[in-house]
Amino acid sequence: MKTPPVYPSKVYLNGDILDADQAKISVFDRGFIFGDGIYEVMAQVNGRFFYKQPHLDRLKWCLKEIEIALDVDALEKQIPDLLEASGLTHKDCLLYMQVSRGVAPRQHNFPKGISPTVMMYAWEKQFPEINKNHASVVTMPDFRWSRCDIKMTSLLGNTMANEHAMKMGCYETVFERLGIVTEASHCNVFFVKEGTVYTHPAGPYLLDGITRQIVLEICDKMGLPVRLEGIPAADVSYMDEAFLTGTGSQVLAIKKIDQHRYFEKEPGPVTQKIQQAFLELKLAAH
Amino acid sequence: MKTPPVYPSKVYLNGDILDADQAKISVFDRGFIFGDGIYEVMAQVNGRFFYKQPHLDRLKWCLKEIEIALDVDALEKQIPDLLEASGLTHKDCLLYMQVSRGVAPRQHNFPKGISPTVMMYAWEKQFPEINKNHASVVTMPDFRWSRCDIKMTSLLGNTMANEHAMKMGCYETVFERLGIVTEASHCNVFFVKEGTVYTHPAGPYLLDGITRQIVLEICDKMGLPVRLEGIPAADVSYMDEAFLTGTGSQVLAIKKIDQHRYFEKEPGPVTQKIQQAFLELKLAAH
Repeated sequence: MKTPPVYPSKVYLNGDILDADQAKISVFDRGFIFGDGIYEVMAQVNGRFFYKQPHLDRLKWCLKEIEIALDVDALEKQIPDLLEASGLTHKDCLLYMQVSRGVAPRQHNFPKGISPTVMMYAWEKQFPEINKNHASVVTMPDFRWSRCDIKMTSLLGNTMANEHAMKMGCYETVFERLGIVTEASHCNVFFVKEGTVYTHPAGPYLLDGITRQIVLEICDKMGLPVRLEGIPAADVSYMDEAFLTGTGSQVLAIKKIDQHRYFEKEPGPVTQKIQQAFLELKLAAH
Repeated sequence: MKTPPVYPSKVYLNGDILDADQAKISVFDRGFIFGDGIYEVMAQVNGRFFYKQPHLDRLKWCLKEIEIALDVDALEKQIPDLLEASGLTHKDCLLYMQVSRGVAPRQHNFPKGISPTVMMYAWEKQFPEINKNHASVVTMPDFRWSRCDIKMTSLLGNTMANEHAMKMGCYETVFERLGIVTEASHCNVFFVKEGTVYTHPAGPYLLDGITRQIVLEICDKMGLPVRLEGIPAADVSYMDEAFLTGTGSQVLAIKKIDQHRYFEKEPGPVTQKIQQAFLELKLAAH
């Protein structure tokens, strides 16, 4: 599920579509100096972006939260040209979008009258029908800020946590804040106990993932009971099942969390039901 | 005390000294994508960098904390050429140094085998003998991560807090974490009560500023009693004096914190004593 170690062919940068190695920004870009920006990732499946509007709405909301003015609807209209230049029109792919506050002499407060830097690129991605990678994860106290609902590019904490997972031979690090499981370094986390699906309520301690929202819709449609409740980190081994969600990871069963193993070969029945329903949503998305 | 809204003339970037508008990095630089980097700021006063070694040691420590390998001693040898190209040899100036993990296709964990991106620039800065700006500050709960001891470039939280101060007509936002004052968005904070100097102990909730360390040395030399103790946010109005410290701000008296005013015209006697001792250190630095 990792991004392959290759660059995309083309990059959209401030209105131009460039070869990836020509896409350069000023060292005074506040995205570089301060991590002062927002990003979004969407998947094109069966020729259209999956839940595009919620992704774009979240991008708008995040930009508003950090006071960057950008016409996201106008930006959306640039996507087809980028896909065409990238040879990805109607192909399954991921689209990465990043907006920084723009270029200015370094000062902490927000400079006025500058234009945001806008960057997008797409790369081919064949999604498995159902993600059967089965993740091993480690837990760690959350040392990140308390506005994790903002999908920002100041992500050093997330990269450190993900690096920790890799060093432990795992796919992800799952955070607990004050003893309660919140989310992972780039995924949301769900648990299942006696047929009830648990996930931490949306709020400042986690990103309200679009796939998280889709899974909650699926549970609702299938009549699976849901409790929006964080699970104590000390109780994860008492759960029957656990899974991660994310645009890239889709619905990914957790096989093992720290020293506790949820299953040997196949995920539990609720995880499988949700994976199947998610697949059907994707197949319907055309 | 704000950085003037102009760019420096020259930028050091990965071994080259460039005109500022030619200093560009890839959009795939992890400093831009993830805020995955470290920075440092040093002041040249009377022809030499003030407390250079502690700054460079902190840079080394921070790079080690986030596992970026860089020969800082070799980098130090590049500074004179940058200063010369910038017309700042022996002139009073500030030097900004930034190191990101480097350029790689986007993945959260640390890519192996890439070279860090190294950027430096300097700009003329006439420091007042004693900073007599007298800051008004506002307080705010700290919403940043809990590794503020790392001088990283994932600074969105700091910029948001500083923007909040500007909107309130203030110079700085002072953070309190769980009710205890820690530091400000780009300064450390000290209080004085009945002749004793208080500041939060170094640790994960604040950057251990070099000017903070110098002030503690000054107190020690002058026999001023110090308690390394965080002041409850609820008690700031019971303090006699307060001041900020930082490489750019030097020792800056706090005139007003939220609705509480410490003084009308002149800072309290302990702040003035420390400012005078700091000035003498600067004058001796040649």
